[in-house]
Amino acid sequence: MAQKVTPMSEDYSRWYTDVVQMAELADYAPVKGCMVIRPYGFALWENMRDHLDRMIKETGHVNAYFPALIPESFMKKEAEHVEGFAPECAVVTHGGGKKLEEPLVLRPTSETIIYHMYAKWVMSYRDLPILINQWANVFRWELRPRLFLRTLEFLWQEGHTAHATYEEAEEETLKMLEVYRVFAEEVLAIPVYPGAKSDSERFAGALRTYCIEAMMQDGKALQAGTSHNLGQNFAKAFDLVFQDKDGETRHAWNTSWGVSTRMVGAVVMMHGDDNGLILPPRIAPIQAVIVPIYSSDEDRAAVFQAAETLKKRLASAGVRVHIDARDQHKPGWKFAEWEQKGVPLRIEIGPKDVAKSQVVLARRDTKEKAPIPTEEAIALLPGKLGEIQGDLFERARKFRDEHTHVVDDYEDLKKIVEKGGFAFAHWDGTRETEAAIKEETKATIRCIPFEEGAEPGRCVRSGNPSKQRVYIARAY
Amino acid sequence: MAQKVTPMSEDYSRWYTDVVQMAELADYAPVKGCMVIRPYGFALWENMRDHLDRMIKETGHVNAYFPALIPESFMKKEAEHVEGFAPECAVVTHGGGKKLEEPLVLRPTSETIIYHMYAKWVMSYRDLPILINQWANVFRWELRPRLFLRTLEFLWQEGHTAHATYEEAEEETLKMLEVYRVFAEEVLAIPVYPGAKSDSERFAGALRTYCIEAMMQDGKALQAGTSHNLGQNFAKAFDLVFQDKDGETRHAWNTSWGVSTRMVGAVVMMHGDDNGLILPPRIAPIQAVIVPIYSSDEDRAAVFQAAETLKKRLASAGVRVHIDARDQHKPGWKFAEWEQKGVPLRIEIGPKDVAKSQVVLARRDTKEKAPIPTEEAIALLPGKLGEIQGDLFERARKFRDEHTHVVDDYEDLKKIVEKGGFAFAHWDGTRETEAAIKEETKATIRCIPFEEGAEPGRCVRSGNPSKQRVYIARAY
Repeated sequence: MAQKVTPMSEDYSRWYTDVVQMAELADYAPVKGCMVIRPYGFALWENMRDHLDRMIKETGHVNAYFPALIPESFMKKEAEHVEGFAPECAVVTHGGGKKLEEPLVLRPTSETIIYHMYAKWVMSYRDLPILINQWANVFRWELRPRLFLRTLEFLWQEGHTAHATYEEAEEETLKMLEVYRVFAEEVLAIPVYPGAKSDSERFAGALRTYCIEAMMQDGKALQAGTSHNLGQNFAKAFDLVFQDKDGETRHAWNTSWGVSTRMVGAVVMMHGDDNGLILPPRIAPIQAVIVPIYSSDEDRAAVFQAAETLKKRLASAGVRVHIDARDQHKPGWKFAEWEQKGVPLRIEIGPKDVAKSQVVLARRDTKEKAPIPTEEAIALLPGKLGEIQGDLFERARKFRDEHTHVVDDYEDLKKIVEKGGFAFAHWDGTRETEAAIKEETKATIRCIPFEEGAEPGRCVRSGNPSKQRVYIARAY
Repeated sequence: MAQKVTPMSEDYSRWYTDVVQMAELADYAPVKGCMVIRPYGFALWENMRDHLDRMIKETGHVNAYFPALIPESFMKKEAEHVEGFAPECAVVTHGGGKKLEEPLVLRPTSETIIYHMYAKWVMSYRDLPILINQWANVFRWELRPRLFLRTLEFLWQEGHTAHATYEEAEEETLKMLEVYRVFAEEVLAIPVYPGAKSDSERFAGALRTYCIEAMMQDGKALQAGTSHNLGQNFAKAFDLVFQDKDGETRHAWNTSWGVSTRMVGAVVMMHGDDNGLILPPRIAPIQAVIVPIYSSDEDRAAVFQAAETLKKRLASAGVRVHIDARDQHKPGWKFAEWEQKGVPLRIEIGPKDVAKSQVVLARRDTKEKAPIPTEEAIALLPGKLGEIQGDLFERARKFRDEHTHVVDDYEDLKKIVEKGGFAFAHWDGTRETEAAIKEETKATIRCIPFEEGAEPGRCVRSGNPSKQRVYIARAY
């Protein structure tokens, strides 16, 4: 903790990179665009992954693993898909010392290979639905990489399902979007706007893409999860057919949906401050850190005994707790380091605290700090963590709501997205207007919400009739 | 379950492939040598992984993630390492539509990139030890692929540690070998011989390689986990130095150790029979399957009600239980399918059983089958699963012991390894003799045990003096 992070107000982008590196979440790898996820960052990802994995399984899905190497010809079978992904592909041309007959693409996403396999496995309607998810690394050649947000290789989960009817596929697509919304809001404490993407922002090969959009502290949007109704596009490209109850051969309907390590970046940008990371308790690798304070050896023994007892009792109450036992650092140094690492609660124990059977409890988010009887602290701590989780969400929601503006004037829209914030404005639904807005403001249509804003009006740019307001913002 | 597996006695290799495919553990992928791990196989791997992950964390290690793409130049920095791995590498030459300036290797193992990063992170002895593990996919170009046993891409964990002294590194290497032994024996019910590899079987770049060796049902050996003391070879190649307490700059000492999806193949080959898979209860995705038996709708309702009640009670006792509710299959068909899938216990419930408050309990491994009062079944089931786990291990140990022969005559050794089994024989310790044995018998020195067999004798092939018996066998 020798270094301080760049203040957010000075340079948000620099602040982000500082926080990620100083909290030891990640580091740059030797290959440009690649990243090393360090133990503290990986523990955070593991907690996120385990939560989401449970939610995916509870909704009836099972995990599997498909190969990372995809024949180049597979990518070309679905016309839109290849157009969207070919420019980003990493290609293996040599293996075992020889040039390959056909180059292999490192999966940028796995629709092609997965639907090829489903075509082998599905015979009749009885084999449907297939509800499979995989946790995997994927590769997309990024020209402007940023730790967690855009890296050449990243980790994610990708669900791929096959259904007998359009209705079932659409229901699945929306069900998983809702799983993502709950995950973002309840686990990561990140409020999101769910909705549909415009046609030009659709996943390459999808019929329709839904997403959840979050607002970071600089007012820019971050797409936090997508769920695609793929229609029969891939089923037709990969001959994924089944015999229906009536004996007819039909193409299946597919969906796919994914969330990635990008969400670690979202957590950093959503909750952090100028002292570093602030982690929501539900995913924090360490929820409470105990810092013993002592100068003499005698004090040290008494303080550590109290710390160990407290640790055991908190651990058995289900709290992830750590004692910072390093002798080489002063308490103040440790405080700053754990603040940088975003640990929700700090517990200080000094000789006077031991004498009074108390501890000093400090909250990372609000900086509140006060002595409290040890027994009370133990009883209160799990609830306190829940309170912090809720407060982080509320703070984020308040920020987002304050920076979301109903806008009917194009000049206002320009100012808002320039300054940072979402414009909730009417759009005439055409690609031309969308392209013009993007060209003129660097902002894009983040999502078309399901219900709110469904009212007749005039497009903020073209003045043509509109049925619906949409969220418009600059985005990561 | 239309098809039957090829009997083991007819063709062990065919039997293996049949079991893997018919139990739906895995399937062939479009790229030769690649494999799809299907949901049932992946659930099995998840259980294995979660057990081992806990054991790795309990011994003080943390997880992280390093990139899959390694600059080709990195592979060349350690001379033995590149010699060992270069022939197996998959190489990315193009990315983002352009030819790369330097080709990238898909990690066949991650020593090079990981020690490069450690060199950035380590300054002083206070930064040591580093005890990091990663779960990842790795790529080795295989010319003779077999599902799970040898595939072009596989999943594994690889631990990579850095220490201040040789002694610490050696202690770590042996500690992780012991973790693997306990994992193989207590979790997978696979008895193993731990020991050291001969120099010619050492990991490319290691000072010393330790391993655990298992015997499959055809008497062939399968290496079930390796732990390497890497000495300072990689530290020197990657400038991994630290300032010691005395102010001197020294090279760190490294270890690495790994276990892979190959172990799924080991479980299949170790425990299966001519009816298919037999899974050890501790890792079985389904520990008990309930098969309802009925003909009328009335019976169906009563039987399913009993099945649901039983399922709930068993689940709350911690048993992974599933009801086979498919109406389209007859009970006999279901029995055969669950046998193929290796579920340890089958519970049959028919109308007569409901009337008598009993169930019929069938063991997969012994085929024992008997009615038992429902209450008794619930009380007894968790213990029964433990009993099966123990019995599988004992059966495997008995088989292994019966097929391990102390041998002093070279012709006997030839017969034993030809027929299938381990020869425990004296070896003079030279590369020449080892090469001759391999050439003449297709068998290799599987391991040099730590204590047993440490007695003076004469080499089984050269007649020269030997201090130690070693295990010799043909291997997967």
